[in-house]
Amino acid sequence: MHLLTLDEQNFAVGQSQVKFSIQSISKVFMLAMAVGECQYSVFDRVNVEPSGDPFNSLVQLEYESGIPRNPFINSGALVITDILLSEFSNPKEEFLQYIHRLTGVSSIDYNETVAASEKALGYKNAAMVNLMKSFGNIHNEVEDILDLYFHFCSIEMTCEELARAFRVFANHGRGVVDSYSYLSESQFKRIAAIMLTCGFYDEAGEFAFSVGLPGKSGVGGGIAAILPNKYSLVVWSPGLNNKGNSLAGMKALELFTTKTHTSIF
Amino acid sequence: MHLLTLDEQNFAVGQSQVKFSIQSISKVFMLAMAVGECQYSVFDRVNVEPSGDPFNSLVQLEYESGIPRNPFINSGALVITDILLSEFSNPKEEFLQYIHRLTGVSSIDYNETVAASEKALGYKNAAMVNLMKSFGNIHNEVEDILDLYFHFCSIEMTCEELARAFRVFANHGRGVVDSYSYLSESQFKRIAAIMLTCGFYDEAGEFAFSVGLPGKSGVGGGIAAILPNKYSLVVWSPGLNNKGNSLAGMKALELFTTKTHTSIF
Amino acid sequence: MHLLTLDEQNFAVGQSQVKFSIQSISKVFMLAMAVGECQYSVFDRVNVEPSGDPFNSLVQLEYESGIPRNPFINSGALVITDILLSEFSNPKEEFLQYIHRLTGVSSIDYNETVAASEKALGYKNAAMVNLMKSFGNIHNEVEDILDLYFHFCSIEMTCEELARAFRVFANHGRGVVDSYSYLSESQFKRIAAIMLTCGFYDEAGEFAFSVGLPGKSGVGGGIAAILPNKYSLVVWSPGLNNKGNSLAGMKALELFTTKTHTSIF
Amino acid sequence: MHLLTLDEQNFAVGQSQVKFSIQSISKVFMLAMAVGECQYSVFDRVNVEPSGDPFNSLVQLEYESGIPRNPFINSGALVITDILLSEFSNPKEEFLQYIHRLTGVSSIDYNETVAASEKALGYKNAAMVNLMKSFGNIHNEVEDILDLYFHFCSIEMTCEELARAFRVFANHGRGVVDSYSYLSESQFKRIAAIMLTCGFYDEAGEFAFSVGLPGKSGVGGGIAAILPNKYSLVVWSPGLNNKGNSLAGMKALELFTTKTHTSIF
Repeated sequence: MHLLTLDEQNFAVGQSQVKFSIQSISKVFMLAMAVGECQYSVFDRVNVEPSGDPFNSLVQLEYESGIPRNPFINSGALVITDILLSEFSNPKEEFLQYIHRLTGVSSIDYNETVAASEKALGYKNAAMVNLMKSFGNIHNEVEDILDLYFHFCSIEMTCEELARAFRVFANHGRGVVDSYSYLSESQFKRIAAIMLTCGFYDEAGEFAFSVGLPGKSGVGGGIAAILPNKYSLVVWSPGLNNKGNSLAGMKALELFTTKTHTSIF
Repeated sequence: MHLLTLDEQNFAVGQSQVKFSIQSISKVFMLAMAVGECQYSVFDRVNVEPSGDPFNSLVQLEYESGIPRNPFINSGALVITDILLSEFSNPKEEFLQYIHRLTGVSSIDYNETVAASEKALGYKNAAMVNLMKSFGNIHNEVEDILDLYFHFCSIEMTCEELARAFRVFANHGRGVVDSYSYLSESQFKRIAAIMLTCGFYDEAGEFAFSVGLPGKSGVGGGIAAILPNKYSLVVWSPGLNNKGNSLAGMKALELFTTKTHTSIF
Repeated sequence: MHLLTLDEQNFAVGQSQVKFSIQSISKVFMLAMAVGECQYSVFDRVNVEPSGDPFNSLVQLEYESGIPRNPFINSGALVITDILLSEFSNPKEEFLQYIHRLTGVSSIDYNETVAASEKALGYKNAAMVNLMKSFGNIHNEVEDILDLYFHFCSIEMTCEELARAFRVFANHGRGVVDSYSYLSESQFKRIAAIMLTCGFYDEAGEFAFSVGLPGKSGVGGGIAAILPNKYSLVVWSPGLNNKGNSLAGMKALELFTTKTHTSIF
Repeated sequence: MHLLTLDEQNFAVGQSQVKFSIQSISKVFMLAMAVGECQYSVFDRVNVEPSGDPFNSLVQLEYESGIPRNPFINSGALVITDILLSEFSNPKEEFLQYIHRLTGVSSIDYNETVAASEKALGYKNAAMVNLMKSFGNIHNEVEDILDLYFHFCSIEMTCEELARAFRVFANHGRGVVDSYSYLSESQFKRIAAIMLTCGFYDEAGEFAFSVGLPGKSGVGGGIAAILPNKYSLVVWSPGLNNKGNSLAGMKALELFTTKTHTSIF
């Protein structure tokens, strides 16, 4: 666990310097980069509501004409990937640079082995991209999108590095060190609201109650959360509960916010 | 619109003294009364996650074995009604007394005409109660539940009265005037989290972004919201958007929180 | 098992004189009586296509605006019951008379105990009637429809009596003994087609292949089938397979049609 | 329209010698070839029940773990294509030879332009293949299956040629001219039953009633049907009804079977 306050205090326990696969936590960075570039036109192609269905369901896509429920389910993140592919000349490289700037750590990189192995078995994601393309909501080639998406999810970071990146969101979209405006105030609120209502697969309501912070989890066992104006907080523990969220991580965050009496409520 | 702060300041504009049908806003009081009485055993029979489906869908109930997604969709509120019917000897009267105590206004009452006319056409709600009963998640008679439920939804209050009632939630479950503990700290957080993620039918994400407060809307055109530790805020305007929420009410709340820079973020 | 040919030959094996609860087989008589009375206006309110879903699903009803897929799933039979309730002054009595005339056996009767006990637990059927009423596809009172429907399903007949009744269908809708025209040629074809495509819950395709006759099964373990222009054939054996059809009955019919080289193909 | 009897009588009206794209009618030949080669192991991977959903729905696939409802919806035909790809060394060529032998017409060929243009827009089919592969029900490469499938559907034949091919099914799976046994008696019954219950997208019940013959339609406007032991009958008229079946073709078949009093009933 790593806690980083806006006034640069660090508190760490356990292996907060060990890199792990951030997986779906990367979707927050993808969304921030897309919104920073395209403003709200992003939300013409991805909705902002909780899904209520398992995070990789095709049913919702078929009933709602290829518009994903939100940018944090796989289908939504694949549309965001399609947008980044259209907007940037070299999105794979520029995404890394974005992360480097957010964290101030230029050694963060993709894990090519992870990216390749997940792509090799990514048939359900391929099904979703094809289905959305049949509805006209995908503009680039299926293969290119999948390659980029699985790279995005393969990034490896430590708890401390993630805390550094998420602190920008705790600071309403502005870099604490460099004062760079990654997001406008309105864009920050939009992304924080999506973290709060959609950040934990089918367990958003449970997390809002037990932890009470906007955040995002990944199947690698990581969870990153923020208390706006105060701190960012990252935990990592690989054992998952049946909803796909880190079991010990959820508990740690719950205990932390309860004992410190800090939450959005 | 009526705003009421914890330190007893009132700000009102428009017809904040006119009574209107609070409809689904009543579900917050139903849930609070049930949780206050039965603790968390309530959540063995109702889930706490956003639904992602239209607010009165039977599909979800059928796929999830009669367990409603959350207490603010109709099926969930019907289970809460069933619980209140089992727990209280005279729930229709005791619910009114609960509202009277929350508000300090003993003239608040059901509108029998509204209750009767909605019950006469409430076939979809009857379908849901029967379906849940087939799964064993309803214990009382169908007719009794529907009668009580439609009474609960027929309550008429003014913006000021609703603001007074919701201020208890802004005060973490404790009465500001009488200091009575309606909810424990943990119970308050649970209900606030459900308001935040499930309070606006299929528009919870939009509301979390544009307004940024926990709240609940009703098809009568009312919306009640809270900023924890600060204030409760109620608007009423009958024209609804296509998601069933007050069109002008949503806009008013958005402008208010934007201009005052107050939100949970 | 009881076989009855158009030229009055009877072949029986086992307990073909023992009465059993015909359950859903009754839906064929309900449909024939409704079509005989109202012609094809029946099919404005019930479709004629296979359902593809489990036989008592509410999902289909919700997505298709309260129009059941066919008259042999429960929702469809409930609409047929509603039609009979509107068209006849005393449908409970007149339905029995219809069966008496079809069979020539005036002792056939409802089992009031069965009707009452199924009605007491019929919450899922009550849910369906209410849901269809919310769509305007039910005209009478919910309680009246359920009472009549559960009576219809409680009829007790022997294999021989059922074979006698179904022989009318094998004879293209005309009584073999009394030459009374129960159905026009076109009405007969309509009902035979529905038996063929919808008569066996989720196993219509399997039955069309393995047996190759139009027919209808019931959860009481009965199956009635016809070879048009030749014979009617009824089996009864209470053990059901996982699709709700008589296990031994299906096998017996398959062996019979295979060994006799008789089927519609 | 072209009618061909088992005793070699030909009756034709209109443009029965004009080639058209047989599209989904090809699925009958694909299934026959697969069943002839692999017997009933085919049905471990494709079910035999009507779908009840639109013919290209992914919802059903997702709920039923990647097992298509029947071989005549797109997903089912794609699994059959996968099977043919595994079983034959050069399936594209051998499928043509199979059609040549069935018809005795060796000039029948694929339309490469049609195959290529449909493949270029076949995102929904690509979605289905990927989804089924995620469930383990596809063994070959996605691209190879799509290429082969779109070739199969691009075959062009005249009404007369189709009637010649389907006469084999009217003759219980045995060639009339060459006496070659394409299908066993049991295999024939299986395929005829699937044509009867699943051959017309969402209109199988309507067709069984109004026409009363096993058959298969295609979006090119063709319909091929059989009366077992008697004849095969093919119509072609491009205008489709809202279910995707030839409007004039359905009407022509209905009038023909009504006026000639020939149907399976």
